[in-house]
Amino acid sequence: MDAKRLAGERAADYVEDGMAVGLGTGSTVYWTLMKLGERIKDGLHIKGIATSKATEKLAAELGIPLTDFAEVEQLDLAIDGADEFDARLQLIKGGGGALLREKLVAANAKRFIVVADDSKAVTNLGKFPLPVEVVQFGWEATRRQLEKLGCSTQLRMKEQAPFISDNGNYIIDCQFEAITDDAVKLNEQMNRIPGVVENGLFVNMADLVIVGGRDGVVTEQRREI
Amino acid sequence: MDAKRLAGERAADYVEDGMAVGLGTGSTVYWTLMKLGERIKDGLHIKGIATSKATEKLAAELGIPLTDFAEVEQLDLAIDGADEFDARLQLIKGGGGALLREKLVAANAKRFIVVADDSKAVTNLGKFPLPVEVVQFGWEATRRQLEKLGCSTQLRMKEQAPFISDNGNYIIDCQFEAITDDAVKLNEQMNRIPGVVENGLFVNMADLVIVGGRDGVVTEQRREI
Repeated sequence: MDAKRLAGERAADYVEDGMAVGLGTGSTVYWTLMKLGERIKDGLHIKGIATSKATEKLAAELGIPLTDFAEVEQLDLAIDGADEFDARLQLIKGGGGALLREKLVAANAKRFIVVADDSKAVTNLGKFPLPVEVVQFGWEATRRQLEKLGCSTQLRMKEQAPFISDNGNYIIDCQFEAITDDAVKLNEQMNRIPGVVENGLFVNMADLVIVGGRDGVVTEQRREI
Repeated sequence: MDAKRLAGERAADYVEDGMAVGLGTGSTVYWTLMKLGERIKDGLHIKGIATSKATEKLAAELGIPLTDFAEVEQLDLAIDGADEFDARLQLIKGGGGALLREKLVAANAKRFIVVADDSKAVTNLGKFPLPVEVVQFGWEATRRQLEKLGCSTQLRMKEQAPFISDNGNYIIDCQFEAITDDAVKLNEQMNRIPGVVENGLFVNMADLVIVGGRDGVVTEQRREI
C-alpha cells in the first residue's frame, strides 16, 4: 500500500462518533476522506468543515455531511496534509493553494493531526517554497516587502494567468535558503505586512504527525508539551 | 470654512511636482483631492494610487492620473483621513471600509500625512469601534477569536446583508473599553489570527497629522523620531 494511503487511512481511526472534523485538502488526506466515507456507510455520524472547494465536492460525493462555523463553535479534530514538516512538528503548507482555510480550520480545532508520506520530513523547513496568500490590490508592493525578509519570490500562475485562491487572492511562493530557528518570528513578520492575508508556516499547531513510509511502516510523532 | 476642508486643503500643499501620491478615502481627504484637481489644471504633474474604488472614481472625475504598484516602487507621499488619532499619532481607520488598501498604501509611502477635524482627537483610542477585515470563510470562528482579545463585536451590515469590502471580505467592528498602551501588541495579536486580513490600527505609521479646528485654526503635529 502506498505511503500516502497508509498515513491517510490511519488518521481516520482518530475520528469518533459525533465529532465535528476539519477536512483537509490534498492527495494524502484524500485517503482519510475515503476511509471516513466507508465508515459513514457503516453508521459513523460526523460533521465536517472542508478546507477547500475541492474537498467540499469530494465530501459530498462520499456522503460526508458538511457544516460550518456558524453551527460549530470548535472542531473536535482537524486532519490535513503538509508539504514539509520538521522534527518539532512545524509545517509548511499551501502547495495546493488552500492555506488560509486550512490554517483557520486547524486553529479552530481542539486537536490537529497531520498526515504525510516520509518524503515530507525535513531537517530545516524552506526547501519547499513558502506559499503566502496576498490580496490582489498592490500585490507588487507586498511582494517587495516579502523579499525584504530574505527570499526570492514568484507569483503563482495557472494557465498563463495568476492563480486565484478560493478567497479571491493571489499566492506568492517565497523561496528561502532555509527557515531554521526563526519560523515563529518569520510567521509574525509576514503577518505584519499589509496585503498579506496568511502564510503557509504552521508553527505550534500540529499535535500529531502521522507519517507513512515507503517500507509500509507508519510512524506517529506527538507533541507532548 | 469647515474644519475638514481646512485640514484637507492644507495637505495638498505638501504635494510637489512629479510625485507619486497615495490618495485616501473619506470626507476630509475629499478636500485634498479637490485641491489637487485644481492644481493639476494649473500644470501640476503627479500620479496617484487610490485606496478605494470610490477614490478611483473621484480621481478620474478630477483629472488626477492614476497608476499602480506595478509602475511605482514606493510612493513619495500618502494622504488619508482617520477615525481617531491620539497624542502619539496612533490611528484607528476603516470606518469607511477601505482599511486594507489604506494601510497597504500608507505602508508603501515614504511619508504618511493624516488629515482630520479636531473631533477625531482622543486621549485613548477605542471609543470608535476598531474595524477588522476578515475573510468570509469561517468568519464566525474569526469573530470568536477576536472576542477573546476583550472586545464585543458586530459584523458590519449594509442594506440587511453583510458589507463587502473592495477586496471581497467582511468587516467586523470591535468595541474595546479603551486601547491604551497596548496598541502595538493588539495590532500583532489581531494579525496573528487566521482569517484576519488586516485591522484598522495604524501604529507608528503617521508622520504628520494635520488637524482642522472649528475655530478656523489648523494644527500640524509631527513625529520627530
